[in-house]
Amino acid sequence: MTEVVDRPAGKEKQPAVVGASNPGAGKPAVDVAALGEQLLGKWAAVRRQARDLAARPELHKIEGTTHTDHRTRTFSQLKYLVDNEAVHRAFPAALGGSDDHGGNIAGFEELVTADPSLQIKAGVQWGLFGSAVMHLGTEEHHDRWLPGIMNLDIPGCFAMTETGHGSDVASIATTATYDAAAQEFVLHTPFRAAWKDYIGNAAIDGLGAVVFAQLVTQGVNHGVHAFYVDLRDPQTREFLPGIGGEDDGVKGGLNGIDNGRLHFDNVRVPRSNLLNRYGNVDPDGTYTSPITSPGRRFFTMLGTLVQGRVSLDGAAVAASKIALTAAVRYAAERRQFNASSHTDEEVLLDYQRHQRRLLTRLATTYAVGFAHEQLLQKFDDVFSGAHDTDEDRQDLETLAAALKPLSTWHALDTLQECREACGGAGFLIENRFASLRADLDVYVTFEGDNTVLLQLVAKRLLADYAKEFRNVDFGVLARYVVGQATGVAIHRTGLRQVAQFVADTGSVQKAALALRDEDGQRALLTDRVQTMVAEAGAALKGSGRLSHDKGAALFNQHQNELIEAAQAHAELLQWEAFTEALHNVSDPGTKIVLTWLRDLFGLSLIEKNLAWYLMNGRLSMQRARTVGGYINRLLVKIRPHALDLVEAFGYGRDHVRAAIATGAEKTRQDEARDYLRSQRASGQAPVDEKVLIARSAAAASAAKSAAASRKARG
Amino acid sequence: MTEVVDRPAGKEKQPAVVGASNPGAGKPAVDVAALGEQLLGKWAAVRRQARDLAARPELHKIEGTTHTDHRTRTFSQLKYLVDNEAVHRAFPAALGGSDDHGGNIAGFEELVTADPSLQIKAGVQWGLFGSAVMHLGTEEHHDRWLPGIMNLDIPGCFAMTETGHGSDVASIATTATYDAAAQEFVLHTPFRAAWKDYIGNAAIDGLGAVVFAQLVTQGVNHGVHAFYVDLRDPQTREFLPGIGGEDDGVKGGLNGIDNGRLHFDNVRVPRSNLLNRYGNVDPDGTYTSPITSPGRRFFTMLGTLVQGRVSLDGAAVAASKIALTAAVRYAAERRQFNASSHTDEEVLLDYQRHQRRLLTRLATTYAVGFAHEQLLQKFDDVFSGAHDTDEDRQDLETLAAALKPLSTWHALDTLQECREACGGAGFLIENRFASLRADLDVYVTFEGDNTVLLQLVAKRLLADYAKEFRNVDFGVLARYVVGQATGVAIHRTGLRQVAQFVADTGSVQKAALALRDEDGQRALLTDRVQTMVAEAGAALKGSGRLSHDKGAALFNQHQNELIEAAQAHAELLQWEAFTEALHNVSDPGTKIVLTWLRDLFGLSLIEKNLAWYLMNGRLSMQRARTVGGYINRLLVKIRPHALDLVEAFGYGRDHVRAAIATGAEKTRQDEARDYLRSQRASGQAPVDEKVLIARSAAAASAAKSAAASRKARG
Repeated sequence: MTEVVDRPAGKEKQPAVVGASNPGAGKPAVDVAALGEQLLGKWAAVRRQARDLAARPELHKIEGTTHTDHRTRTFSQLKYLVDNEAVHRAFPAALGGSDDHGGNIAGFEELVTADPSLQIKAGVQWGLFGSAVMHLGTEEHHDRWLPGIMNLDIPGCFAMTETGHGSDVASIATTATYDAAAQEFVLHTPFRAAWKDYIGNAAIDGLGAVVFAQLVTQGVNHGVHAFYVDLRDPQTREFLPGIGGEDDGVKGGLNGIDNGRLHFDNVRVPRSNLLNRYGNVDPDGTYTSPITSPGRRFFTMLGTLVQGRVSLDGAAVAASKIALTAAVRYAAERRQFNASSHTDEEVLLDYQRHQRRLLTRLATTYAVGFAHEQLLQKFDDVFSGAHDTDEDRQDLETLAAALKPLSTWHALDTLQECREACGGAGFLIENRFASLRADLDVYVTFEGDNTVLLQLVAKRLLADYAKEFRNVDFGVLARYVVGQATGVAIHRTGLRQVAQFVADTGSVQKAALALRDEDGQRALLTDRVQTMVAEAGAALKGSGRLSHDKGAALFNQHQNELIEAAQAHAELLQWEAFTEALHNVSDPGTKIVLTWLRDLFGLSLIEKNLAWYLMNGRLSMQRARTVGGYINRLLVKIRPHALDLVEAFGYGRDHVRAAIATGAEKTRQDEARDYLRSQRASGQAPVDEKVLIARSAAAASAAKSAAASRKARG
Repeated sequence: MTEVVDRPAGKEKQPAVVGASNPGAGKPAVDVAALGEQLLGKWAAVRRQARDLAARPELHKIEGTTHTDHRTRTFSQLKYLVDNEAVHRAFPAALGGSDDHGGNIAGFEELVTADPSLQIKAGVQWGLFGSAVMHLGTEEHHDRWLPGIMNLDIPGCFAMTETGHGSDVASIATTATYDAAAQEFVLHTPFRAAWKDYIGNAAIDGLGAVVFAQLVTQGVNHGVHAFYVDLRDPQTREFLPGIGGEDDGVKGGLNGIDNGRLHFDNVRVPRSNLLNRYGNVDPDGTYTSPITSPGRRFFTMLGTLVQGRVSLDGAAVAASKIALTAAVRYAAERRQFNASSHTDEEVLLDYQRHQRRLLTRLATTYAVGFAHEQLLQKFDDVFSGAHDTDEDRQDLETLAAALKPLSTWHALDTLQECREACGGAGFLIENRFASLRADLDVYVTFEGDNTVLLQLVAKRLLADYAKEFRNVDFGVLARYVVGQATGVAIHRTGLRQVAQFVADTGSVQKAALALRDEDGQRALLTDRVQTMVAEAGAALKGSGRLSHDKGAALFNQHQNELIEAAQAHAELLQWEAFTEALHNVSDPGTKIVLTWLRDLFGLSLIEKNLAWYLMNGRLSMQRARTVGGYINRLLVKIRPHALDLVEAFGYGRDHVRAAIATGAEKTRQDEARDYLRSQRASGQAPVDEKVLIARSAAAASAAKSAAASRKARG
């Protein structure tokens, strides 16, 4: 069951307007309960369980402790999760799990509201370390290690990243060389750059590890494979012989996790410690794999990483919702530049700029949330085996690579804007913005650096673009490119703009209508992605025939545009997810308000890229000038529903845990108002010097005019 | 003297091209020493002293401690500053100071490189508490309290802000009511919202305080005045009777400072504790002031606050420089997606996107730094009395209100981008980005919330605009407004755009030349500010004649535009400061490179606001499309000088203190390269499976063609 959500005192619920199908027919209202249910998505029950758990004080971050104390607490919280059966959903039913991949991620990402360190430490143990054994190992491995991993007898590491290689896993330099005589692999770190780095559980807690290394047998390097390695003696907790490491120390956040470095000096493990689902070495050293292509094999093994990206995407949504819940509630109570004056003035949320700051991010959070739900369903389809073709996996990878960068950047942006919108109070840890922001900071570079991921998306977009022409002879392609170029030329010379301008016939109203039209927004957003990809494709055409250096140089000259194209693609996906979700809203009032919110999201995207639409002739100057005003009008329309829209997120006081979101501000204002009222009533209020001056000026003026009138009469 | 700056190993200095006056005449070089001297500015000697001090380990932040330990350390560091005569420059010579206001700020802001908590704690003690006694008190007060404040016998608070009032000081609710019978003021906190809040030194260290309260005497409230109040017993360190408080606890950063809350229950202080330079109460309760207008009196008293804003502006510059020094050095060494391959590929800084991320911020940092130097000189002119008219003070206030928001936001943006550009390493506290970012976070909302300050600037711009028409009859004003409107109409309908388009005659080259022209950039930037202010002025004309509510509503409808106009104005000031600084560069090579950097700054501003220039007809579509490409070409030109440009900042290893900026990355790469080379030489390197496959495919193909050719011959 979900908790009762705090509703700020004095907030009056507007009556629902049943059947209101247009904004003019009365004031629409949001059906908070139904919307909340929709936001919980397919795994609503799991999310409710996870939120109940996350609301418990035992799992909450204690602020202001040292990183050593924080680590100890977080580790003990992992045991609490085990005891409360919160983390085994993805594991095989035979071993006590429930083979529920989507539900597992849904529950896991809700932990971020308790403490992001807990989320990520649990992710290291079960989402990375355990998952690697499960997905890369075979039944023997499952039986040997999964029970201990699941019940935390074996805290462990996912030892992939090296100091010299962040996102470039294929280039790691740790080797695992097969010694047929001993039937052992020898793991070795050849130089300092090959130390494993930033590895969770490595500094203190890890007893075991899945270590990624270049598998060498019979003089051949078969690429990156995963090996199970015992790291520490379970009794003494000292490193085993040949293994060494270092503590990464204090970090910008997530200090409940003991990240560290590891290195291996000819460490021997049995042949059977190779997690051999995708690549095996026979006793004599013969290598075999069910996947012939080394490239495809590598990407298949790395495919298990995608769940990390999916869950970061979801955690970023949850953190954004927590921040907006607190900041919107405070903004709906806080008064500035008036609290001791005699009349009540507007609250912060009535200010246009404040609406711009918070409500646009609220709209984006809805979009990001709906997109995440689609990603999670895609993930579940693949990992449950329901839809698990190569193409499905590639689509999942691309979708995660597109959405995770935008959602994690959005979370940082939202946390920061909320913190600033709450002023000095926003900086106090008791209001949590700064704490969550520090913890989520690294989400934008780990599990795939955001900039690198967007380049993967761009490459996929280019590949899809090229694929369209694969079976077409060069003449057709050339004509297409010329057509493209002509299209661009038309936009450039403004012919299309002129045409549009004429069609607008000077009516701002009409232009605005088209922009708020669903198809209009879709056309603009889609056109931009297609055009950017086509332009980049045309610019890069033939780069494959250049020398490696020249090809790379050409690619580099368009790197910025490619990343922008990938981002535009991801934004379109978010907009489409929001629009699809709209179609599932049955309550008419909710549908109206959510449509405004979707329009706010869509128009904010168009406003952000307005220069592109103008200089490519997609919008006339006149129409472009209506965008800002239309956004401002949407803000005014959405404003009365802001509290409902954050309430629908469904997070209670024990999730938000921000002192400023408890109604304390309103209580203080009421007290101040009562004091001033009773002071005035008692006649003891001092007179303001300015009032005295005004009175004496009025008196002097009255005396003067009285004298003048006496004189006139005299 | 300045420290020797670390230069990454292997970086080769390019020879200076003497007399090179255009980029085509050879490769220009930066005269790092001369540029460094120029960047140190007017108070170079003080900055050198302060940097020597800031380089000492005694003053460095220790990461990972609790906030209580951090507070203890920071307090002890204040004593170190006293012992090293680092903080008395602004105080009167008669009391051991040197009446050097500009130098004082210059030295103070350099402390941020040691620990921002130290900078701000010193700022609370001497810049706020001490300054209030100095500027608002009279000689008697100076003699009584300044010696103890200066030597830290009296740690104290600047108790202005209240929970219910952030930036709205005029509305504070603490009262100081004069009791003529006792010749005492009674300080009182009437309700919870009137508690002083976020007050540095309040939680632990403060023995005294300057408390701001509404002065009430003879039944009249004369507005906010400052009172000296003893807070704690110097022996027991307990609050004195009637005084209470609370610890603000852990914050998002700056945890070396003990911020807290204070409240007063009818606390009595002698009449002489009123800091009475701008307002006095005689024994009988008669109030007198040298400033008749209560409004002007209030702003005069608050004028002392400006030095806080000036010093935050400078500290933001210093922090940005530290971050860029570390990130640019790392980016000039770090290789990605290649380090174990056999050829050296490009370093991160050769990637276009990486250049976009770091070099644009480098350009902005130069602009922000030059603008700060101008602000500091203006500040010194006013506070030294050299140019201290009412108008000078207003100009200083406006300049600080314009620059501080942009520089502090820029620092956060730069710290974050640098942290992300260094990936996981950027998140480790040993590399300091996350630590500095957390500490500087609150700079954007304290000493004047950035959004509020920009609105002050906007009001000043509107007032100046209105002033131009003060003595003009309504007919002229109406014609002017019509003219404005016509101008807008022309832009809207695209006539000007068409004209410009024709003038461009399709030549991209010519359009780019105009954009990189100094006058061209100035015209675009200036035109935007003027037009935005004029449009807002026209929209708000007559709002003064509306009812208060309607006037406020009208203003609110344009709040976003007004803030954007103020920001555009501040950006123009930065651009002008950079351009003025260019004129003081004598070395020809340096001048070329800095001109590219100024152009990068100017064009980045134009690119950011490209939609505005397009939809207002200031740039044609064709010309707008050249901006991105021109920026990309500037990045390539500036790239070879990036290390020189950060070296000129003049910060040494003891200021930067980032593990990744020490050359360690290059050392690791050299070691890896040597290992791989010797492995290949020994013939022991394993063969890559992909190579084997390629070989066997080639062999198969050769066998096939051999067979075919045998067949053909056969």
